[in-house]
Amino acid sequence: MSAALVVLSGGQDSTTCLAWAKKRFAVVDAITFDYGQRHRVELACAVEVARRAGVRQHRTITVDSLKQLGGNTLTGDTGAALGASGAGGLPNTFVPGRNLLFMTLAAAWAWQLGTRDLVTGVCQTDYSGYPDCRADTMVALQQALRLGLEAEVVIHTPLMHLSKADSVRLAQAEGGLELLAWTHTCYAGQVPPCGACPACLLRAKGFAEAGVADPLLVRLAG
Amino acid sequence: MSAALVVLSGGQDSTTCLAWAKKRFAVVDAITFDYGQRHRVELACAVEVARRAGVRQHRTITVDSLKQLGGNTLTGDTGAALGASGAGGLPNTFVPGRNLLFMTLAAAWAWQLGTRDLVTGVCQTDYSGYPDCRADTMVALQQALRLGLEAEVVIHTPLMHLSKADSVRLAQAEGGLELLAWTHTCYAGQVPPCGACPACLLRAKGFAEAGVADPLLVRLAG
Repeated sequence: MSAALVVLSGGQDSTTCLAWAKKRFAVVDAITFDYGQRHRVELACAVEVARRAGVRQHRTITVDSLKQLGGNTLTGDTGAALGASGAGGLPNTFVPGRNLLFMTLAAAWAWQLGTRDLVTGVCQTDYSGYPDCRADTMVALQQALRLGLEAEVVIHTPLMHLSKADSVRLAQAEGGLELLAWTHTCYAGQVPPCGACPACLLRAKGFAEAGVADPLLVRLAG
Repeated sequence: MSAALVVLSGGQDSTTCLAWAKKRFAVVDAITFDYGQRHRVELACAVEVARRAGVRQHRTITVDSLKQLGGNTLTGDTGAALGASGAGGLPNTFVPGRNLLFMTLAAAWAWQLGTRDLVTGVCQTDYSGYPDCRADTMVALQQALRLGLEAEVVIHTPLMHLSKADSVRLAQAEGGLELLAWTHTCYAGQVPPCGACPACLLRAKGFAEAGVADPLLVRLAG
């Protein structure tokens, strides 16, 4: 039976990937990482999205190790504004190695489940300055995971080369719009979303360009 | 100033690598992972070895995520004997993705330190069935880390192609024998070591073939 494991953050992109996976695999599991993110609402969204999507198993794994290694903005160790410029010219929301770590942990769980296919919502089109979300990084990591786990590992990145508008269209095509009503995007952690932070603006632009009403806003307005 | 970060378990191999690094880099830091290993004495050995070697910084990072993902023998979740055969024909001491995870976390800290060079004691000569310790895995992971961190990353594996006897000779050549007196190897977790488990036997064989008295046994007998 074909199975996939989706890395689910509770945001728009990974939820779109979950809808994509549900259409293609008989069994879908989901894994979420609690790395001390400032906005805990994301984790609750992941639980709700996974439940509504009918995944087989959903696990939230606590990853304290990144926090132990030092301060960064998303984990709330500094008071800096999200999105400001940080070390090496990268945004201060860059947590070095975060996505490499998450994919490795996802692969470790998939190995135990006997699941070959991993799905992640990383995207280099709306490139946010995170080198660990790029296609070449994912290809290299896939190779490292195959060798290191001595197993077939396939990393699917359905959004890698899509614009935000195309991503909205994909969610629509996969029947995933309803799920997007339960996602969280806002960098300010607000529900309803603030509508003014870079993440809210990017999301709004995508829905506007796709000509689709954001189901989250529709639900909250309802 | 040249600097290196050594992944230090508190065992013979990583301690030999620490001695190797001390000879080659002006500054050496060390990182140890507490992943819930059954024998906590290893962690104390890592602290002692790091102190005696005079590293600049030594951090022990707690990694709970592997334990959350499921049972395996080294983390004590099962009652099985260490070294018995487990899933996929691999030893039941195989923790899927463990070394990939540790190297990724080490690279994340090195990135913050501005350190390019990582040193690990993995070895495929005395091949224990761990695919994430092989040379090709390390090369692939190095590439994934370079791309994912957008930084130079060099993974040094001084023991990769050495026998246990050659590893002892290397420790001797690097002036690291004294440090080996403070390491832990025994799978049974005993101090003095049990002398009968596969890990003790492998260590004894290496010292015997190199014609060197094990400094740990000398110290404990003293």
